[in-house]
Amino acid sequence: MSVTAAKGFTAAGIAAGIKENGNPDLALVVNTGPRRAAAGVFTSNRVKAAPVQWSEQVMKSGQVSAVVLNSGGANACTGPKGFQDTHATAEKVAEVLGRGAIEVAVCSTGLIGLLLPMDKLLPGVETAAAQLSEHGGEKAAIAIKTTDTVHKTSVVTKDGWTVGGMAKGAGMLAPGLATMLVVLTTDADLENEALDKALRAATRTTFDRVDSDGCMSTNDTVLLLASGSAGVTPEYEEFAEAVRQVCDDLGQQLIRDAEGASKDIKVEVINAATEDDAVEVGRSIARNNLLKCAIHGEDPNWGRVLSAIGTTSAAFEPDRLNVAINGVWVCKNGGVGEDRDQVDMRYREVHIVADLAAGSETATIWTNDLTADYVHENSAYSS
Amino acid sequence: MSVTAAKGFTAAGIAAGIKENGNPDLALVVNTGPRRAAAGVFTSNRVKAAPVQWSEQVMKSGQVSAVVLNSGGANACTGPKGFQDTHATAEKVAEVLGRGAIEVAVCSTGLIGLLLPMDKLLPGVETAAAQLSEHGGEKAAIAIKTTDTVHKTSVVTKDGWTVGGMAKGAGMLAPGLATMLVVLTTDADLENEALDKALRAATRTTFDRVDSDGCMSTNDTVLLLASGSAGVTPEYEEFAEAVRQVCDDLGQQLIRDAEGASKDIKVEVINAATEDDAVEVGRSIARNNLLKCAIHGEDPNWGRVLSAIGTTSAAFEPDRLNVAINGVWVCKNGGVGEDRDQVDMRYREVHIVADLAAGSETATIWTNDLTADYVHENSAYSS
Repeated sequence: MSVTAAKGFTAAGIAAGIKENGNPDLALVVNTGPRRAAAGVFTSNRVKAAPVQWSEQVMKSGQVSAVVLNSGGANACTGPKGFQDTHATAEKVAEVLGRGAIEVAVCSTGLIGLLLPMDKLLPGVETAAAQLSEHGGEKAAIAIKTTDTVHKTSVVTKDGWTVGGMAKGAGMLAPGLATMLVVLTTDADLENEALDKALRAATRTTFDRVDSDGCMSTNDTVLLLASGSAGVTPEYEEFAEAVRQVCDDLGQQLIRDAEGASKDIKVEVINAATEDDAVEVGRSIARNNLLKCAIHGEDPNWGRVLSAIGTTSAAFEPDRLNVAINGVWVCKNGGVGEDRDQVDMRYREVHIVADLAAGSETATIWTNDLTADYVHENSAYSS
Repeated sequence: MSVTAAKGFTAAGIAAGIKENGNPDLALVVNTGPRRAAAGVFTSNRVKAAPVQWSEQVMKSGQVSAVVLNSGGANACTGPKGFQDTHATAEKVAEVLGRGAIEVAVCSTGLIGLLLPMDKLLPGVETAAAQLSEHGGEKAAIAIKTTDTVHKTSVVTKDGWTVGGMAKGAGMLAPGLATMLVVLTTDADLENEALDKALRAATRTTFDRVDSDGCMSTNDTVLLLASGSAGVTPEYEEFAEAVRQVCDDLGQQLIRDAEGASKDIKVEVINAATEDDAVEVGRSIARNNLLKCAIHGEDPNWGRVLSAIGTTSAAFEPDRLNVAINGVWVCKNGGVGEDRDQVDMRYREVHIVADLAAGSETATIWTNDLTADYVHENSAYSS
């Protein structure tokens, strides 16, 4: 279902030959209207790929008719030629759809520093356009995979309207981290302003809190397109919640498919003085390599949680900190708590609760363990 | 030679039985005077081990007669009992030496959250005191090892005076990161103020710029003791340079022995607008797990360098960035530079130069690659 679950959208996914292994590598998502509203959030990395620079301009144009996405190359750090290639891709999509290029968002993912094979990409756009279908969402989701082992889609259907989406990647964005691309679609009839508000609210507590390896991508993009074709304008709160649910579901799928991971780690920070404190502490814990290794070894090493908390500027007293791992309060009042041998870590999901005892705010960050497979996957070849 | 290279110091290293495997685990360094000046820098982690809390007080007392160090347990997150144990350890050293406890600094390293076996540690102090010798520096350096594969010592001898030292650990301090302990000694005749100034200046550009895995310890301590026994008061600049050389040498030894590492990576940031910018960028590159994996795989993946630079707030223009790896400028003006196949990465040391083209300041951060061995070492058992 994916991006074509909502009415007013067609999609396609094909193998254009960008990837040397012949796997699908080009996706096209088209908003057939009647409305062509859109919102987008992009990587906060200051080194932005050409397609991000282009798509940020597209967002300012006010309407988005199509998104073209390629895997097999990030088109980042490719200079003026890279930007020209992105522009030419948008022009090609515009030409085959009979729309303006400034209404065509472009997303790319893959290795940084390589120019895209335009002699394959541009004909690929024509092939994809010829295969556009209301049932093409699945194929589009497959075509944007890089090191993803599975494609990721999600759909929430409400009373007469739908939010659907697809995602690729394995990591985090601020929106900023990891080579993550997401396209969401809805047939609800909403203007850009509401879409933007709902998308920013949703990403703030979902994708923004998925932190696989602390590394920030040059290409991260999350787009939300609205066709209005359901002819329904939902209440904002209900719509925002549906967008949040789809983002949350896709974010969870990203974590579960993170490179080399054997554990999904839910870091829940409670009783923080502020939400910012909770996020800062959660992120510090989630990025601690020593802790991530310990979790991989099924070692409830709460000392590494405390040392990660200690590096933050959050409000807390060291001797009031409490830490639970999978329900066992292994650290109480900054020292030894319940018997760590009670902690059962056999399962894939690990739940760490860090109690700052400094207020009533909370935040949850999702991460993975650090494994030899992660090292292998990121050292054995360029990505 | 180590801490006993300078005159006016004795040391010992013994197996007190703190470590279950019977390896040496207790070191004692004594300043026999005539002067007992000292300076110290400590972890910036807000979760501080009991010995750090104690030794910070000792520093305020104005003179340090001895340092007692144990491996086999960090005595961190151990509550009031942990602090009492540190105090009791200092009292015991004071008793056997006939000095005041407030002149005895204490350092501990090992697993967080475990109380030390005082029934072994206190008798161990007596044993160590009985073995104090002007040739004991080597044994002391051996007794503070944890996962270190070799002990680390360094000596600089100048005209009539000497700076020596020992270190354990594998990582970074701010002073803050990694379970790192360092004791430096000198027989130069200097007061606390000069020692403090020289030590802070030295750590700022040496240990502070060694970042193995981005993880900040609860126990990091660097102490500098001066006996005055050479009867020479060197020029401050000359003394500071000698301290810097010893710190630099020990820092390099820490990096070369970092857990699981197969590559030592020198990250040199040049042409930064400010030194702070250079350090921020260097640290961001040094902590990028994806880059560290790539270096492990001998892949000159400059895209990961650029994406790490892009996460900082340093002054730079993305299209003016240049990156060299082992002398080959693989990235020029933010894009593809010289042929990456020219980069020879067969050797252990890897040199990354990041040119921000934004000024004239520079900084060098040392780190390691990220390896399956690091994951194994930090997941297979608690540490």
